[in-house]
Amino acid sequence: MRFDLDHALAVLSRTPSLVRTLVADLPAEWTERDEGAETWSAKEVVAHLVFGERTDWIPRLRILLRDGEARPFDPFDQRGHASLMREHDVAGLVELFARERAESLDTLRAVRLTAADLERRGTHPTFGPVTLGNLLATWVVHDLNHIGQICRAECHQYRDAVGPWVAFLGILDRP
Amino acid sequence: MRFDLDHALAVLSRTPSLVRTLVADLPAEWTERDEGAETWSAKEVVAHLVFGERTDWIPRLRILLRDGEARPFDPFDQRGHASLMREHDVAGLVELFARERAESLDTLRAVRLTAADLERRGTHPTFGPVTLGNLLATWVVHDLNHIGQICRAECHQYRDAVGPWVAFLGILDRP
Repeated sequence: MRFDLDHALAVLSRTPSLVRTLVADLPAEWTERDEGAETWSAKEVVAHLVFGERTDWIPRLRILLRDGEARPFDPFDQRGHASLMREHDVAGLVELFARERAESLDTLRAVRLTAADLERRGTHPTFGPVTLGNLLATWVVHDLNHIGQICRAECHQYRDAVGPWVAFLGILDRP
Repeated sequence: MRFDLDHALAVLSRTPSLVRTLVADLPAEWTERDEGAETWSAKEVVAHLVFGERTDWIPRLRILLRDGEARPFDPFDQRGHASLMREHDVAGLVELFARERAESLDTLRAVRLTAADLERRGTHPTFGPVTLGNLLATWVVHDLNHIGQICRAECHQYRDAVGPWVAFLGILDRP
């Protein structure tokens, strides 16, 4: 399926409300526990999403539109959200994400991308040439992936509560 | 984490709105395509959720409360949603699911389960003794799992659009 800016905006604009709904009215033991070593809690996923608004999607779009392939994107720091994790609770992170995502999408709409713009190229620090369309499609997939990851982290907290059903629920397999 | 009825109700009650949001304003090629053989589209997941309201969660709760361990639950038909798939579009299935889920939760609240009730036992047709608490925790995990599955099916439609990023996005691996 081809990338479509209007459909992408539809997905990107509702991620904050999906994330808010997924964590609302749940106790901290549900939103702040992970699945074990090298996994993220729901709260950590939201902190990562905030950090992405600040350093990933729109910053890379700006580099691509300004410098094309000449200047590679800055590498993304997968641990860069550590201070956000310390400074906010999950509800605070969700509201921060909602605000920063709205600003990101205002910027995206304001640049009025054409179909030709989607073919413009930038340079990824690891794998080289990418198009603006690739970047924006990745943003969409990244959102959906992390919504699924929040579901997974929450599921895991009921790993014992489901009893024998654990055998039928592949999502509860230890990562 | 122990099963908690109020928290479970919080999760179960919002699944219809999460599912509605995940499929809203997207073209059929996004919601009706799967990830390949033996996988489900977003639409098929919603049909399965409707079928579960009719034949899985509340029907099993009723059997358990009425017959205890004496009568095993009826086996669940993983293909039972085929006619729902044919008869409705995805928006229609979401509204059917929202209505039937609301009725299921009215029933669940009306039985006014106590902590002792959660320890009552029934018989699963495959793995034998389970508690009512196990059944209800499984309902919660099942919802979250299928929300994640809708995210996954939608991601997959952008598998080509992300270009080289496919290497970084494990969710796009072919199942």
